Amino acid sequence: MTKIIGAEIVDVRFPTSLELDGSDAVNVDPDYSAAYLRLVTDEGPDGYGLVFTAGRGNEVVVAAIQSAVDLLPDEEVETLLGHLGQVSKALVHDSQFRWIGPEKGAAHMAAGAVLNALWDLKAKQAGLPLWELLARMSPEELVEVVDFTHLRDAITEAEALEIFTRGQDGKEERIAALKQHGYAAYTTSAGWLGYSDDKMVRLAKEAVADGFTLIKLKVGASVDDDVRRMRLAREAVGPDIKIAIDANQIWEVHEASAWINALGHDVYWVEEPTSPDDVLGHARIRREISPVRVATGEAVQNRIIFKQLLQAEALDFMQIDSTRVAGPNENIANLLLAAKFGIPVCPHAGGVGLCELVVHFSFFDFAVVSTALENRVIEFVDHLHEHFVAPVTVVNGRYQAPGAPGNGAEMYADSVSRWTYPAGAGWEELRSSGRITAIASD
Amino acid sequence: MTKIIGAEIVDVRFPTSLELDGSDAVNVDPDYSAAYLRLVTDEGPDGYGLVFTAGRGNEVVVAAIQSAVDLLPDEEVETLLGHLGQVSKALVHDSQFRWIGPEKGAAHMAAGAVLNALWDLKAKQAGLPLWELLARMSPEELVEVVDFTHLRDAITEAEALEIFTRGQDGKEERIAALKQHGYAAYTTSAGWLGYSDDKMVRLAKEAVADGFTLIKLKVGASVDDDVRRMRLAREAVGPDIKIAIDANQIWEVHEASAWINALGHDVYWVEEPTSPDDVLGHARIRREISPVRVATGEAVQNRIIFKQLLQAEALDFMQIDSTRVAGPNENIANLLLAAKFGIPVCPHAGGVGLCELVVHFSFFDFAVVSTALENRVIEFVDHLHEHFVAPVTVVNGRYQAPGAPGNGAEMYADSVSRWTYPAGAGWEELRSSGRITAIASD
Repeated sequence: MTKIIGAEIVDVRFPTSLELDGSDAVNVDPDYSAAYLRLVTDEGPDGYGLVFTAGRGNEVVVAAIQSAVDLLPDEEVETLLGHLGQVSKALVHDSQFRWIGPEKGAAHMAAGAVLNALWDLKAKQAGLPLWELLARMSPEELVEVVDFTHLRDAITEAEALEIFTRGQDGKEERIAALKQHGYAAYTTSAGWLGYSDDKMVRLAKEAVADGFTLIKLKVGASVDDDVRRMRLAREAVGPDIKIAIDANQIWEVHEASAWINALGHDVYWVEEPTSPDDVLGHARIRREISPVRVATGEAVQNRIIFKQLLQAEALDFMQIDSTRVAGPNENIANLLLAAKFGIPVCPHAGGVGLCELVVHFSFFDFAVVSTALENRVIEFVDHLHEHFVAPVTVVNGRYQAPGAPGNGAEMYADSVSRWTYPAGAGWEELRSSGRITAIASD
Repeated sequence: MTKIIGAEIVDVRFPTSLELDGSDAVNVDPDYSAAYLRLVTDEGPDGYGLVFTAGRGNEVVVAAIQSAVDLLPDEEVETLLGHLGQVSKALVHDSQFRWIGPEKGAAHMAAGAVLNALWDLKAKQAGLPLWELLARMSPEELVEVVDFTHLRDAITEAEALEIFTRGQDGKEERIAALKQHGYAAYTTSAGWLGYSDDKMVRLAKEAVADGFTLIKLKVGASVDDDVRRMRLAREAVGPDIKIAIDANQIWEVHEASAWINALGHDVYWVEEPTSPDDVLGHARIRREISPVRVATGEAVQNRIIFKQLLQAEALDFMQIDSTRVAGPNENIANLLLAAKFGIPVCPHAGGVGLCELVVHFSFFDFAVVSTALENRVIEFVDHLHEHFVAPVTVVNGRYQAPGAPGNGAEMYADSVSRWTYPAGAGWEELRSSGRITAIASD
C-alpha cells in the first residue's frame, strides 16, 4: 500500500506581463502563474496538480492548497483513489472550511488542485493518460466520482448513469479515432489586446497557415478599435475562418448588445460579455445579440452556475476551465450538464498548463459523454508549454491525443525552481538587470 | 498627515464546537473564528476589521488579508479615507488579484476586512459610530464610495443619488428616533440544531420574556424532527411570536418545497433553502412555497448575486452579511438595490463580531436609504460579545444605537491573545486538559 508522505506547494510565476502576452480588457498585465502541488508518495509515482492564476493572489492559493491537503482523509493512496467522489466531498463540503466559499474562489481552486493531483496519481498508477483512464472507467464508477449536490433539479445520478451507459456504444472506435485524428483546436495567440495591428494581422495569417479554422480577438477597450481589428482580421484570414471575440467581463449588461452588434454578425461567438456571476445578464445579452452566440465559463466558479446558465438558456458554448473548479470530479459534472442540455463544450485554455490539463476532458467527452464533435473546439495558446514534462502538441490545427500517463500537470523541476516567486533565479535576474524594479512582497 | 505603519493579522478561534453552539444542518461543528486585522497608524487611532469564519479556513483568510493589505495604494491615511470608492476598486479589481475571485470567496472577504478597517479609522477620526458617519455623509460622497460595476442594469449612480437625496428629508428625526428607540432584533439563540428539545423550549420561552417577537429555528436534518420542533416552539412562545426557519443550504431545489410545506404556513420565512449561488433555484422555491417567504444572503458572495435575486423575484428579505462582501462599500450597494426593489433588509449576524459590525447598516438604512422599519429586523445571537471593546446591547428585544466611535470590530487584546490559534493560552489549556485531543495543523 502507498502512503502520501508530503506535499510540496510552490508559488511559480512567469513574467509574461513584460511582453503583454495574455493582455485583454480586464487582465491588462498578467504574470501567468501556477500554485503548483506535488503530492509525494513513499513508493511509485508522485501526483501533480496546479491552479492557474494571473500573478498577485497566487500566494493565497498556495496557502489554500496547504489547507486543502490537511483536509485529506488519513488513508492509504489506494483507498483514496478508489473513492474519489468521497474524497471530493471531504474537501468541498468540510463543515468548517466551506464557510470561506462555499465552492468558490481560492478555497475551491485549492480543492481542485488536490483532486487534480490525486487523479494524476490514479492515471499514472494505471499507466494511462487521464482522458483514457476516465474513458475506461465503468458508468457506475464515473457516477460515484461526481458530486450531484444542488444539481439534481437539472440532472440526477440515474440520468448520468444513462448518459455514461449510452456512451459505451462505439467507445472503442471513438477512442481509436481520437488517437488517430486528435481534436480540433482554435487559437487566441493572435488577438491579445496589447498587440499592435501589424502583429495581430501577421499572427492571424500564421494561424491560418498553421491549420486553425477559428481565431479569437480580445475586445472591449474601444469600440472603434474593435471594429477596425475585426475588419483587419477578416481581411487577413479570408472568408472561411471563424472569428470569435472575447470581452473578459468588461461590459454592463445593458451596454453589451450595442457594442457587440456594432461588430456585425460576422462574430462567431462573444465570450464573457459581462460578470461571470450574472446568469440573468448572460441570458439577456444572448437574446439581444442573436444570431451571434454567447460563450462563457473560464471564470464560472462551479457547476451550480453552469446549471443555471443552461437552465436560463444563457449560453451557446460551455467553456470549462481545468483549475477553477473542484478538479476532474466537478468537470465531469459540467460535461454531464452540457450533454443533458445539448450544449457543446469548448474548453478554456492558455495560461500555465491549462491546455495540458483541459484537453483530457474534451477527449473524454467525445469518447463517453456527448460522443459528438460538431461545434466543439479546444482553445490553444502557444505559451509556456516548454516547462511541462508532457506538453500538448498541436498539429495542423488539431490537438494530438495525450499519450503520457497522468493529467499533464507535471512541470520540469528546473522550471519550477527557476520561476519560484519571488526568490527563483529567473526573478533575481530580472531584478538585477533592471527589467523589474521591485516586487509587491519585498 | 497620518501613515499606516503596519498591519497585524491574527488567526483568532473560539472553541464553540465543544458546546454545539451555532450548529445547523450544514455547519455541524463550527469553531467561531475571526481573521482579525489591525491597521496600525503612526498617530491617532488604529483601524480594526475582521472576517468571520467557521474555523478551518481561517488561516487562508489571514493569508488573503495580508495580500489585500499589500494592494493598498501607497498614500497617506487622509487621502485613502477621502477616496474610499477608489480604494475599494483598487482592492476588488486589481488586474492580477481578481483572477482568484473575481469578487468572491477568501480574496473578496479579505478586501472586505481591509475596507472595514479603513472605515473604522474614518469613523474614529470623525468621533462617530460608523452608522452615524454614513448617515452624515452627503449624497454625493455616498455615491462615490459605491462600486456600480455590473449593477447598472438594475441601479445607476443617478438613481442612487436620488435615493440618498430623498433620504435627507427627515434624517435628523430618524437619527434621533434610532438613538432613542434602537432597532428591532430577533434571536437565533434558541434554535440551534444540536440543542435538545428541552433546551430549545426553555430558550424560546426566555426569548419571549426578553422581548423578542421573532425567533428562528434551524431545520433540515429530519422533517419529522422539524415538524416536532416547530410545534414545540409554537407551544412555547404562544400565538403572537413569529417563527422563522433556516435550512442553511441543505436542500436540492426540487425537494425544498415539499419539506417546507410540511411545516405549514406558520413559518414566517425560510432561510437559505438551497445553494446561495442558485438564483433560479431560489426563485422556483419561492413560487412553490408562497405565502411562506424566502430569506437569504449570509453566503451571497457579492452584489451581483443580490441584484439577480431581486431581478428574478427570488427573495422577500435580503440578509446582508458584514464580512463576506467588500466592506461597507458593497453593503451600501446592497442597501441601494434593496431600496430600489422595495425589499426589506434583515441582516445576518451572530458568529464573532457580526452583530457588532452589521447593525450599522440597518441603522444607516433607516436614517438615509429605505427610511423604513416595517418588516425589518436584525439577527441577534448572544455569543462572544464579551470579547469586544464596544459590544452591541440589546434591551427588550431591540438593538440600542451604537454610540462608540468606529465600526465595532475592535476586540480586547487579551481575548485576541488568549484565543490566537493554535498557540494561544485558551487552546493550550483545552489541549492539556484533554478536552481537545489534537488540532489539524499539528
